[in-house]
Amino acid sequence: MRVVATDRHIAHAPSGFIARGNRVANPETPERAAIFRRAVEAGGHAVIEAGEHGLAPVAAIHAADYLEFLETGWAEWEQLPDHAPEILPNVHPGRNMSIHPTHIVGKAGHYQADTACPIGPGTWAGARASADVAVTAADLVAADGGPAYALCRPPGHHAYADQAGGFCFLNNSAIAAQRLRESGAKRVTVLDVDVHHGNGTQGIFYRRADVQTVSIHGDPHAYYPFFTGYTDEIGAGPGRGANLNLPLPRGTGDGGYLETLGGALAAVEAFRPDVLVVALGLDPSEKDPLAFLAVTTDGFRRIGERIGRTSYPTLIVQEGGYVSDILGDNLAAVLAGFEAGRG
Amino acid sequence: MRVVATDRHIAHAPSGFIARGNRVANPETPERAAIFRRAVEAGGHAVIEAGEHGLAPVAAIHAADYLEFLETGWAEWEQLPDHAPEILPNVHPGRNMSIHPTHIVGKAGHYQADTACPIGPGTWAGARASADVAVTAADLVAADGGPAYALCRPPGHHAYADQAGGFCFLNNSAIAAQRLRESGAKRVTVLDVDVHHGNGTQGIFYRRADVQTVSIHGDPHAYYPFFTGYTDEIGAGPGRGANLNLPLPRGTGDGGYLETLGGALAAVEAFRPDVLVVALGLDPSEKDPLAFLAVTTDGFRRIGERIGRTSYPTLIVQEGGYVSDILGDNLAAVLAGFEAGRG
Repeated sequence: MRVVATDRHIAHAPSGFIARGNRVANPETPERAAIFRRAVEAGGHAVIEAGEHGLAPVAAIHAADYLEFLETGWAEWEQLPDHAPEILPNVHPGRNMSIHPTHIVGKAGHYQADTACPIGPGTWAGARASADVAVTAADLVAADGGPAYALCRPPGHHAYADQAGGFCFLNNSAIAAQRLRESGAKRVTVLDVDVHHGNGTQGIFYRRADVQTVSIHGDPHAYYPFFTGYTDEIGAGPGRGANLNLPLPRGTGDGGYLETLGGALAAVEAFRPDVLVVALGLDPSEKDPLAFLAVTTDGFRRIGERIGRTSYPTLIVQEGGYVSDILGDNLAAVLAGFEAGRG
Repeated sequence: MRVVATDRHIAHAPSGFIARGNRVANPETPERAAIFRRAVEAGGHAVIEAGEHGLAPVAAIHAADYLEFLETGWAEWEQLPDHAPEILPNVHPGRNMSIHPTHIVGKAGHYQADTACPIGPGTWAGARASADVAVTAADLVAADGGPAYALCRPPGHHAYADQAGGFCFLNNSAIAAQRLRESGAKRVTVLDVDVHHGNGTQGIFYRRADVQTVSIHGDPHAYYPFFTGYTDEIGAGPGRGANLNLPLPRGTGDGGYLETLGGALAAVEAFRPDVLVVALGLDPSEKDPLAFLAVTTDGFRRIGERIGRTSYPTLIVQEGGYVSDILGDNLAAVLAGFEAGRG
C-alpha cells in the first residue's frame, strides 16, 4: 500500500477544548500521526512525502471567507486579553441570530460549529499540510487506479464548507473526492467508517448527484455530533438519494458492524462510483478513549478485507481514532485486511 | 419608589462560564441582588416581597419545550460522567445543522445561545423567582399607574422565547411587558439601557406592533452579543419600525449617553406607549467589570431623571450590572434621579 504523509502537521498541536462545560486535554495530538507512521513503516508500506498543492484544491471545497478566518483569525485572537491558547467560540449564532460578525469572538462563533476545534497559531499550516497529504494521495490513485492511504492529521470529516468542528478544519476526504472528480472520475463515493457521523462531508455534498456520501457511525441521538447523522438525511435537490446514514447503537461489535458495512457497500455498488474514498476513523475501536462502539483489531482487519474485496480504485483517508495501546495495530489491521481482500 | 424583591433567587448560584476559551468565574452572583437590596433599603424605598404567579405569565412568552429543558435538563446533565457543575453547551447547531436533539448535550446546544448561561440544579427555581418579581411589580404599575422597581436576578434580556443566553433564562422584561398588555395597556415600550444589546427582548417582539423595543448598548461590532444589536434591525412584518437599536462606541461617557437617550425617548414618544418598561442595566458604569462604556454615578442619576421626566406609567426591571464598589450607588442614583424627574 502506498502511504502519503508529512511531518508538517505538527504545527497544529492544540492544548485543550471544551467538553461538558469543562476545559479538558485535547486527544487529537501529533502523537496520533507518529503512531500511524510507525505502524505503516512496521508493516513495510512505502511512505511518500506529501507535495505542496497550494490553495486551489482546498478552495474547491471551502468558502473563501472561512479560509481567511482560518488563516488570519489567530492574529486577532492573540490581541484579546485573557484569551485561551487557541481560538474557541463562546457565542453561537443559531436560529435567533444571523449577522455576519466582525469581531474575533463573533467570527469564532460563526466559523466554529462547536468547542472541539481549537485554532492555534499553527492550525492553518497544520491543516493545509493534512490537505496536501490527501491531494497527493488522490493524485496517486487517479494516476493508475491503485490504492493509497493518506495519513492525514488533523482529520477533516466534521469540517463543513464554511465551518470547523470536532477537531477538523479542512475536509480532507471532501477535498480528495473533488480532486478525483477533477482528475476524470465521473462519480465518487465517500464511505465514512469513523465512529462519528461525517457531517461536514455530508453537508458539502448534500445537494450533489456526482458524489455519494455514506456514513456508518454511533447513533447521534446519544453521541456527537447530535444534530446530524439520522436516517432521514438522504440528500436534497440533485443529491436526493445520494446520502446514506447508518447509525449504530452503543456497544455494537464486529458482527453488527460488518453486517452494516455490507449494507453500505451494497448502496455503494448501486451508485457505481468510479473511485471510492474511505474516510477511515479508527475510533470505532473497543479501546478508543471516546468509546461508543466495540470493534476489535480483528474486526478492523475484516473491515479492511471487505472493502478491499471491492474493485474500486480506492483512496483511504485517515480521520479520527485516538491514542490507545492498540491504535497502531488497528491501522495495520485495516491496511493488511484491505490488501488481503484485494488479493 | 415601590421595590419588589425576593430572596428566592439564591437557588441560582452558578460557579463559572466559558469566555474566550477559558472557564472563568461567573460575575452574575447572588451578591449582586444583596447589593441592590441594601441600596434600596438605604434609600428608604419600601420593599415588597414578590408573589408566586405560577407558569402562566412565563409561558405567555417562552416556548413550552424550552421551559421543559430549563426545568428538567439538570437531572439529565447530572447523569453525565465528568460534567461541569452547570449545564453548558459545546455543540452549536447553526446554519449547517438543525435537527431537534434528544441527548442533554444536544439540548444544551439547542437551548443555550452561548456558554454564558450555566444551568445548575437551582436555576429553574431562581429564574422563576426572578420572573415572579417582574410580574408582581408589573401588577403594581398596572393597578395604579405609579412606578415600581423590580429587583430581578438572574437578569432576562438575553433570553429568547426558546433560548437562554448571557446569564439570562427567563426574559423578565418581556414577561412584564406581556403582563402589562394583558392588564389593559394597548401599547408597551421596553427601553433597554443595559450595556449589552437586549437581543432576547428584541427577538421576542420582533414581529409585533404592540410592543416597541428600543436598546442603547455597546457597539456589537466589538462587544457581546456580536450577532445582533445593529441599526438595520428594525423589526419585521407587523413589527417593522417598532425596533430601534442605538449602539454606542467604546468609552462613551455621560454626555454621549444622555444625548442618545434623548433620541431613544423621542422614538418612544412617537410610539405613544401606555406603559414604559425600563430594562435597567447598571453595566454602562465606568467601573463595571465588563467595562465598555463610561457612565458615572452622576450620569446614572441624570439617566433616571431624564426617564422620570416622561409621564408614562413606568416599570423598572433590573437587568445586568456587576459588582464594583459603586454598583449600589449607581442603582440608588437611578432611582433618586427618576423620582426627582417625576417631581
